[in-house]
Amino acid sequence: MENFVFHNPTRILFGDGMLDSLPGELVPFGRKVLLVYGGGSIKRSGLYDQVTGLLKKADKEVFELTGVMPNPRTEKVYEGIEICRRESVDFILAVGGGSVLDCSKAIAAGTFHPGDFWEDLYLNGQRIDRAVPLGTVLTMPATGSEMNSTTVVSDWENNRKRGYGNVLLFPRFSILEPRLTMTMPREQVVYGAIDMISHVFEQYFSPPDDDNLSDELAEALLRNIRVNLDRSLTDLNDYQARSNLMWDSTMALNGLLRLGKEEDWQSHQIEHALSAWYDIPHGAGLAIVHPNLLYYIRKEAEHKLARYAVRVWEIDPAGKSEEELALAGLKAMRDYFNEIGAPATLGDVGIPAGAIGNLIDSINLFPAGYRSLDRDDVRAILKLSV
Amino acid sequence: MENFVFHNPTRILFGDGMLDSLPGELVPFGRKVLLVYGGGSIKRSGLYDQVTGLLKKADKEVFELTGVMPNPRTEKVYEGIEICRRESVDFILAVGGGSVLDCSKAIAAGTFHPGDFWEDLYLNGQRIDRAVPLGTVLTMPATGSEMNSTTVVSDWENNRKRGYGNVLLFPRFSILEPRLTMTMPREQVVYGAIDMISHVFEQYFSPPDDDNLSDELAEALLRNIRVNLDRSLTDLNDYQARSNLMWDSTMALNGLLRLGKEEDWQSHQIEHALSAWYDIPHGAGLAIVHPNLLYYIRKEAEHKLARYAVRVWEIDPAGKSEEELALAGLKAMRDYFNEIGAPATLGDVGIPAGAIGNLIDSINLFPAGYRSLDRDDVRAILKLSV
Repeated sequence: MENFVFHNPTRILFGDGMLDSLPGELVPFGRKVLLVYGGGSIKRSGLYDQVTGLLKKADKEVFELTGVMPNPRTEKVYEGIEICRRESVDFILAVGGGSVLDCSKAIAAGTFHPGDFWEDLYLNGQRIDRAVPLGTVLTMPATGSEMNSTTVVSDWENNRKRGYGNVLLFPRFSILEPRLTMTMPREQVVYGAIDMISHVFEQYFSPPDDDNLSDELAEALLRNIRVNLDRSLTDLNDYQARSNLMWDSTMALNGLLRLGKEEDWQSHQIEHALSAWYDIPHGAGLAIVHPNLLYYIRKEAEHKLARYAVRVWEIDPAGKSEEELALAGLKAMRDYFNEIGAPATLGDVGIPAGAIGNLIDSINLFPAGYRSLDRDDVRAILKLSV
Repeated sequence: MENFVFHNPTRILFGDGMLDSLPGELVPFGRKVLLVYGGGSIKRSGLYDQVTGLLKKADKEVFELTGVMPNPRTEKVYEGIEICRRESVDFILAVGGGSVLDCSKAIAAGTFHPGDFWEDLYLNGQRIDRAVPLGTVLTMPATGSEMNSTTVVSDWENNRKRGYGNVLLFPRFSILEPRLTMTMPREQVVYGAIDMISHVFEQYFSPPDDDNLSDELAEALLRNIRVNLDRSLTDLNDYQARSNLMWDSTMALNGLLRLGKEEDWQSHQIEHALSAWYDIPHGAGLAIVHPNLLYYIRKEAEHKLARYAVRVWEIDPAGKSEEELALAGLKAMRDYFNEIGAPATLGDVGIPAGAIGNLIDSINLFPAGYRSLDRDDVRAILKLSV
């Protein structure tokens, strides 16, 4: 096992009825709460009334930031920072999916930062030494933001989507009520699962391969996501499966799978360009990019793709070469993505082949994984995706 | 997934050279440090000099509690509490294996408790609302105490071994340097691994069985422990394997595997009686008790034992009944324990068959797992162990 430091202080309250814990969780924090949420879905579902009722019960003074969109944008962050500064907000409560959470983290990070949060933090990686504490009520399992310290935000005007991380951005608590995810449309369930799978891939398909536990855990997660996604797609009201999937999502990106691994994240970098230009769902972009990236690096990743085929897809290794196993694993992955109705080509999500040049120019590449990609590699991968 | 609350704030510094982080980790705490350790092994290995050197560098005033034995005893805890109270100790630094850590946690819990720590906390489960903060430098992977909030201590005079847990007892940090474990004798490596395996069993062999991730993670751990124990026993200097094993140990009991599970812990309760009477290594006792307990409840646990046989031992299920698979899994487990040189009977560790009556009387039983045991059941299990 390679060296690592692990520290994840987020408190998780998981299960039916856990929302009632909200007032208790808020006790250690000040009175002024910024409630951040997306569109009207939490109003339609009744969650908005529940949460505001509980905030009232907790005797909090509530400010609101609404209208956070998927692929959350810098404008909304500036708006939130402005409220936090003007009102001296004590705590940010994010109620929604990964976009609402990531926008909230950006606000938390930017409030006490004297300069421009986007320029200084997201583009230039400056450190912060203070942030507004935040908590979350999760309504969509996908990004894992509820138990990690990272955030991804888009500068829509310049088609740039960038991430930022700091230990101060771990949510103090996250309330995970599976029933709050039950209203997600089928398509969102699929995209969420692909996001989880892709998070696992980014950690799993990277050196070293040394009998470390992290690879075993990654395989356990990949199998479990599939079992519970299949159950969920058969019956979206299967609480057991939906709740299992919700915890899978958190575990896929709470820092455990990366321990002792170098990680990759090149598929995420490429996808960020897709959604920064075309505002497509992150999971849809990953479904297109990740299988093709793994196909493209199949020689360098052959041993791991072969292991993946056997351990995750239970493909019988008898009589097969490592190359054959790797290809069988890639095929199983792609077939499965097709079977669950994930997009397979840029055309499926309305991105014209002619856009590839622009996309490539805005990708933030760095050396990683089994094979570090240059712009020509990315072009080839995106051409596989046409 | 059943409801759960998860919160594990321990900071883990894992790997070669991490001991050098000690002064930095101690910055947030006061000047007076109680250094707790066992016998002379850390003096012989040079670790004592390293640690005291680093404490000096951190400008700490150091008090010492030495001579903590395996199956740590109440006397040593009273001694530590006395020092902490008299000197107003700010921080406890435990350097050693699980016994040193558990003794330190007991001191941390007892220092501010006005009554008798043993009577009030360990026997009657009273809550504490304050504890001395503590950190650890681990030298033996086994108990998982470095990343959990529980402690087990023995009242040797009355042959009682009991546990206590409180969120205040999570170590603030734990330094895990695999090289510090390299001096362990082979026997201790085996006992440590059996302790890990038994921790996984206590969580895995319990309801519910609902496609939850925790069971998948448990299987991942059981496979990984075996792979790395085999490598370690082939070459005790195999850093890769020893380091993997060290992280397995922490993950086996840091709270993740129990999520959504009812857990069992009856094997541990029975073993506690064995070591409270005969002061045997905890791992040795578990090697004797746990396989026989699982054999005894094989009907109630049949489905899970069958799954265990396939997933952990890769026994081909084709043409086998669930009962046959369960028995094959039990046999594989016992054969493996024999192969690695673990004791199989009470006689192997010098406990006479005639002692069973006394042992049974001191066991703290509670309903748990696939089958709750009464004293007759325990007698039958111990008779299987003769």
